Amino acid sequence: MKIVLDCYGGDNSPLAMIQGAADALAECPDLELILTGNEAEIKAELAKLQFSDEKRLEIVHAPEVITNDDVPTDAIRQKRESSMVKAFEIAKERQDVVGMVTVGSTGAALTGGTLKLGRIRGIRRPALAPVLPTVKGGWVCLIDCGANVDCKPEFLEQFALMGSSYMRAIYGMENPRVALVSNGVEDKKGNELVHAAFPLLAALPINFVGNMEAREALSGEYDVLVCDGFVGNVLLKSVEGSIGALMKLLKGALKSNFRSKMGGLLIKPALKKMMKSLGYGEWAAAAFLGCNKLLAKAHGNADAKQIKIGLMQVKAMAEGQLTERITAEMEKL
Amino acid sequence: MKIVLDCYGGDNSPLAMIQGAADALAECPDLELILTGNEAEIKAELAKLQFSDEKRLEIVHAPEVITNDDVPTDAIRQKRESSMVKAFEIAKERQDVVGMVTVGSTGAALTGGTLKLGRIRGIRRPALAPVLPTVKGGWVCLIDCGANVDCKPEFLEQFALMGSSYMRAIYGMENPRVALVSNGVEDKKGNELVHAAFPLLAALPINFVGNMEAREALSGEYDVLVCDGFVGNVLLKSVEGSIGALMKLLKGALKSNFRSKMGGLLIKPALKKMMKSLGYGEWAAAAFLGCNKLLAKAHGNADAKQIKIGLMQVKAMAEGQLTERITAEMEKL
Repeated sequence: MKIVLDCYGGDNSPLAMIQGAADALAECPDLELILTGNEAEIKAELAKLQFSDEKRLEIVHAPEVITNDDVPTDAIRQKRESSMVKAFEIAKERQDVVGMVTVGSTGAALTGGTLKLGRIRGIRRPALAPVLPTVKGGWVCLIDCGANVDCKPEFLEQFALMGSSYMRAIYGMENPRVALVSNGVEDKKGNELVHAAFPLLAALPINFVGNMEAREALSGEYDVLVCDGFVGNVLLKSVEGSIGALMKLLKGALKSNFRSKMGGLLIKPALKKMMKSLGYGEWAAAAFLGCNKLLAKAHGNADAKQIKIGLMQVKAMAEGQLTERITAEMEKL
Repeated sequence: MKIVLDCYGGDNSPLAMIQGAADALAECPDLELILTGNEAEIKAELAKLQFSDEKRLEIVHAPEVITNDDVPTDAIRQKRESSMVKAFEIAKERQDVVGMVTVGSTGAALTGGTLKLGRIRGIRRPALAPVLPTVKGGWVCLIDCGANVDCKPEFLEQFALMGSSYMRAIYGMENPRVALVSNGVEDKKGNELVHAAFPLLAALPINFVGNMEAREALSGEYDVLVCDGFVGNVLLKSVEGSIGALMKLLKGALKSNFRSKMGGLLIKPALKKMMKSLGYGEWAAAAFLGCNKLLAKAHGNADAKQIKIGLMQVKAMAEGQLTERITAEMEKL
C-alpha cells in the first residue's frame, strides 16, 4: 500500500515527518511511502536516522512550501513546486497511491483536496472530520468541523453518510449512532438548517438517532455528530478551550499551598494518564472525507508519533475501503 | 425597589424561592417583593421561616403552574392563573415594579417576556444573556444563548449593543470588549451571518474588537460574546459538557489507586475552591435583555442562594439603569 506524505508546512517540518515516516515503515511491512519536499534535506535527515529501506521510500523533490500566510486557492494554483501541491498531484495521478497526509495549511489542504483530488461522484462538499475521545474511552466523529461554514441541508445529509461510513471503516463499528447537533434533543429543536436536514438524515440507510445537545458531545452516547462547519468549529474549539481552561485552573489550584502541592505530586501519574486518554491518541489527524483519494490533515504542530499515526490512519481508511463505501452509498442515494 | 418572584415551576419550588426571597429582603433594606403562586402554601412556608417583615412582601395568589411539558406560547396565552403569567402581568402593569425573576420553563419565560412585557422600542428580538466565569476570575456575557436560533445580521447588532450595556450596568465596566463568535479571529472569517453582521457591529458606538474563536470564550480576553442563539447554545453546552466530562474523569483518576486517593484528599479543598470559582456564583441567572421590564431566568434547579442572587441581579440591573441605557442606545441608532 502506497501513501504520500507532504513533509513541509508544519511546525516540526521536515524532521518529524521523516522520523514518523521511518517509524511507520518499520511498523508496517506492507507500507510504501512517497515523501515530497526538499530532496537534499530529506536525504540528509534519512542518513542521520541510518534509514536503509530505500526500496519502500521514494522522494519527490519539491522546493516550495505553502504557509499559513498563503491564500489557499492562490497557493494551490500557483505554488506548483510546493511539497503540498506535488503530494496532491502524485495522490491524484498514481493509481497505486491510496491517499496522502499533510500537516500544512488547513485552508490549502481542503482547497487542494477538492480541486486536485476531486470529489467522489455525487458528493457536493467534502468535509473535515476529526475524531474526539469520549469519557467512556471511545471515540466520536465530528463532521463538518470547518471546511464548509455555510451549508445546505443536502450537505449535512452527505456528512451523515460519510461520517457513518468513516466510523464503520476505521473502527469496524457495525451501526454508528449518528446525531444532528442541535439546541435540544427533541425532534422539533433546531435552526432552519437542522429542521430541513432532519428528515433527510432520517431517510438515510444509517442509524440516525435524532438531535443531540453539545453538552453530550464527549459523553460516548453518540458516534457521529453532524453539523455545518461553523457550528462544528465552535463546538470543537469550545471543548478544547474549556479543557485547556480547566487544566490551567487545576494547575494553579495544585500550586496554591503546601498541602495542595503534596497532593499534586501524589496524583501526578493518574493525572497524566487521564490527560493521555483525552489526547488525540488514536487517529490524531482529521480526515477530509469525500475526495477521490484519501486525505488526512494532521495538526500543524504534529510530532513524529502523530505523523506515524496519520499514516496508519490513511492505511486503516484504505483497508476499510472507505472510498468504495462512500461511492457505493452515493450510488444508492 | 419592587421585584416580582415567580415561586413555581422550578425543581425546588416553592421552598427555595421563599427562602431566597426572605434572605434577599434581610440583606437589602430597600427591597420589596411580590411572590406569585399558591398563597396558602407560600404563607405556610413563610410561617415556618418565622418571617415577619410582611410589609415588604406581598403574595399574589396564582394556583396554576407552567411546566416544561407545556407548549410555551399556549401556556402563556391560556394558563392565565399560573404563577408565571401572574408575575408577567404584575411586572408589566405596576409602574413601581422594576422586573421579575422566574425559574420556570425557559421557553415560556422567553415567550412571556416578549409577549407580556413587550420589547423596548426598536428592539427586534430580546436575547438570553448568561454570564460565564473566566479563568482570570472575571466574567463574560454570552448573547444570544438560545432565544433566537435563526438570526438576521441586525439582530446580532442589537445583541452587541444590549450585551455591552448589560456589562456596563451590572459590573460598571467602562468599555466592555465585544466580539463576534466566529471560526477564526481574522476579519474575513465567519459564515454569511457573521460576514454581514461584522460591519454593523464595527459601526456601533461600542468597543467592538472583531471576531473571536470559541477556544477563547473563557480566557478573559473578551467581555461580551455575540452570536445567534443556536451557536450560543452549542457554545455554552460544549463548555458545560467539557467541564463536566473532565471533572468526571478527574474524579475517576483520583480514585484509581491508593496513592491517587491520598493525593485526592490533600487537594480536595483547593479543588473545591476552584470549582466554586467556575460556578455560577455571581449573577447566576440569565438576563433576558430587550424587554420593557427586567427579566432574569434562573436555573430550573436553582436553590435559595441562587434565587437570592437572581433577585439581587435584577436589583443591580435596575440600579445600573439598564432599560434606560438600552432605550437611549436604540434611540441613537
